[in-house]
Amino acid sequence: MKPIQVGLLGLGTVGSGTYEVLKRNQAEIQRRLGRPVVISMVADLDTAKAQALVGPDCQVVADAKQVIANPEIDIVIELIGGYGIALELVMSAIEAGKHVVTANKALLAVHGNAIFAAAQRQGVMVGYEAAVAGGIPIIKSLREGLSANRIEWLAGIINGTTNFILTEMREKGLSFDVALKEAQALGYAEADPTFDIQGIDAAHKVSIMSAIAFGIPMPFAKAYIEGITQLQAEDIEFAKQLGYRIKLLGISKKTAHGIELRVHPSLVSEKSLIANVEGAMNAVMVKADAVGTTLYYGKGAGGEPTASAVIADLVDIARLSTADAACRVPYLAYQPAAIQDLPVLAIDDVETCHYLRLGVADQAGVLANVTGVLAECGISIDAMLQQPAAHGLDQTELIILTHVAQERVMNAAIQKIQQLPTVLKPVIRIRKEDLS
Amino acid sequence: MKPIQVGLLGLGTVGSGTYEVLKRNQAEIQRRLGRPVVISMVADLDTAKAQALVGPDCQVVADAKQVIANPEIDIVIELIGGYGIALELVMSAIEAGKHVVTANKALLAVHGNAIFAAAQRQGVMVGYEAAVAGGIPIIKSLREGLSANRIEWLAGIINGTTNFILTEMREKGLSFDVALKEAQALGYAEADPTFDIQGIDAAHKVSIMSAIAFGIPMPFAKAYIEGITQLQAEDIEFAKQLGYRIKLLGISKKTAHGIELRVHPSLVSEKSLIANVEGAMNAVMVKADAVGTTLYYGKGAGGEPTASAVIADLVDIARLSTADAACRVPYLAYQPAAIQDLPVLAIDDVETCHYLRLGVADQAGVLANVTGVLAECGISIDAMLQQPAAHGLDQTELIILTHVAQERVMNAAIQKIQQLPTVLKPVIRIRKEDLS
Repeated sequence: MKPIQVGLLGLGTVGSGTYEVLKRNQAEIQRRLGRPVVISMVADLDTAKAQALVGPDCQVVADAKQVIANPEIDIVIELIGGYGIALELVMSAIEAGKHVVTANKALLAVHGNAIFAAAQRQGVMVGYEAAVAGGIPIIKSLREGLSANRIEWLAGIINGTTNFILTEMREKGLSFDVALKEAQALGYAEADPTFDIQGIDAAHKVSIMSAIAFGIPMPFAKAYIEGITQLQAEDIEFAKQLGYRIKLLGISKKTAHGIELRVHPSLVSEKSLIANVEGAMNAVMVKADAVGTTLYYGKGAGGEPTASAVIADLVDIARLSTADAACRVPYLAYQPAAIQDLPVLAIDDVETCHYLRLGVADQAGVLANVTGVLAECGISIDAMLQQPAAHGLDQTELIILTHVAQERVMNAAIQKIQQLPTVLKPVIRIRKEDLS
Repeated sequence: MKPIQVGLLGLGTVGSGTYEVLKRNQAEIQRRLGRPVVISMVADLDTAKAQALVGPDCQVVADAKQVIANPEIDIVIELIGGYGIALELVMSAIEAGKHVVTANKALLAVHGNAIFAAAQRQGVMVGYEAAVAGGIPIIKSLREGLSANRIEWLAGIINGTTNFILTEMREKGLSFDVALKEAQALGYAEADPTFDIQGIDAAHKVSIMSAIAFGIPMPFAKAYIEGITQLQAEDIEFAKQLGYRIKLLGISKKTAHGIELRVHPSLVSEKSLIANVEGAMNAVMVKADAVGTTLYYGKGAGGEPTASAVIADLVDIARLSTADAACRVPYLAYQPAAIQDLPVLAIDDVETCHYLRLGVADQAGVLANVTGVLAECGISIDAMLQQPAAHGLDQTELIILTHVAQERVMNAAIQKIQQLPTVLKPVIRIRKEDLS
């Protein structure tokens, strides 16, 4: 059979990883697919560097539009990133009747609905396994592997940078700032780490998973997003004493009232598998009605792990492109006509457990006051930890784990607790998830 | 589009789970697939019980051949189990031009090559996601999700019964016999647990994974198989003291000399994710060149988890059956013409680390003698643990962890150690895997 001709836009870390892996494993991939997949054209602004990288057999151009205009090209891989030129190129590739593969989670989270609608009109496929959790086949598992199930919730460590920072903070007792600098020095965090540490990257990814898990339009605009920049080393230590680790989780859950979609630091039991996912690794847990809980673990970033997902999409397209378009795996896992625009809950309506840390005066009656407020608000207590007051100080730390309470109710309780004269510092609150 | 008509052979735990999940989630599945999938005919010897279970809308027959003969049926699900009648029925379904879905790992491990050859001739698909690790989409991940990679090795906890027993032994300090009885009482082990506790079930499953990971014919006949019946509570305890847990692993690895394929108890570092897979849960680790290490975790047995995999196969067949037969996912992940009959290594040729436990006389020179033998054989020591002699006894236990050594060399060393006059009991040896 005739080789699949691929055009690659953007020869950065993932682009050159993709070129390299496809070349290295060409024979193995052909043994599986039955025909060659060849990157025959590459677009990159630095043509000299690109040409040196891909060698003489591959045509290199500066203008990505030339790749899209080439009638020999079957599939266009977009690895430029961002929402600007990448959106324009993806849309014109689709208009030109090319199948598209992209690792661009930001693009899909923000413009996915428009991109998939255009692809549907043109009858082309859009592969995006690489957009979530790098090389872990989580998109395939959600869209295909779990297709028998009603998915109830998913929760993932889907940003390696923040998981690396949290691991360093816990293992070495570092502050956030120091751990971030270390991550930057080691190449785990970028010079401008905003998207990672503020949880935006994780929100892009969990939004994509939420859409395909529940059959809703891409819900990124409605996500609640909180990063790890405010996390203190003390809370990681207290969580440890209580048997928990703090992870930045992307969570989406289907409830009777709508879809929860949120990214924030969460306490998870140290006995759970996901709590033991350390360093820059990623993992996604999925709870579904028939299969129960499954977990998928691996490298969430890096040139070759991401290339693994990009190339798997190429192979899938080569396989499915001969099937009736109506029979292919739908873009968002559900048939376009079956997508339901379910409400996404405001964070105030979300129910979780909570970790509270209170700086309180070391005197009689404090505990009674605090627990009295919680009882008034109908919030019950799961566990408590009181530190002995440091020598010579008349204040101490009180840590409380609560059972499930609605965010709105918890906010009101915290406001009341904050007003108690014996509560001396701003109350620290971190959500806690029960992922069993 | 016209509904996919499915015939189901065998209405036991998995069969009734499949019927139930498909009925319960019919709407959700149709939202994904775009057309209904309906079990319209069931064969089971107990027709009265079966009819009561499936209700009046589904035809129940005692003779499975009637299902296969029905021209309306597109896909036949085989959930009878075993190699006898199941083989006959699967072959005649294929001959009748039906696509087949099966959860029967024993059948595939033993007769897979013949079954896939027949299916290839007839142009029908054979889905078997449910045959390995229940609802975990590991077959899909290996055949499709990791298609860019050269797979280097895989190692899995793929038998829930034995993992439950090992967890009970470790957590409660039970002997194998007591833990087995407990597993039977709780329904985690069958009345005749032979296939599970002797490692045969795990060997069926790892053989299937080995074939699709490396592109070789089904290698079950050449697997090395050792169960957990000889495991002693002491070794689980000593392993714990050294930072390890003992798991029954199915392992397959591609080496320069051939394929390793083995099932046996293994020490794994308690820090690894797979060591923390407890109770009846399953997990498979896969190491591949581009993606690195990935892990897949979930329930490996039970009616509904297995049904999840069976139904995912139905959905896949409905999707891919309209594609060119040459473009579909190949039965064993590789195109039939690309399957290579690589040698499977005898256990003597396998290289692993080892745990040794020696009952030795509590006297000077013992350690020098033992370590002398290991040094002579070129086996180096990684860690050692010597128990203080119990009060009044003149013998003690010596535990040694070795670095990598070939099984043949280790056997020779153990034989020499056994002959030392200060070694008072048979040497206990358990392999140890480094899964990083």
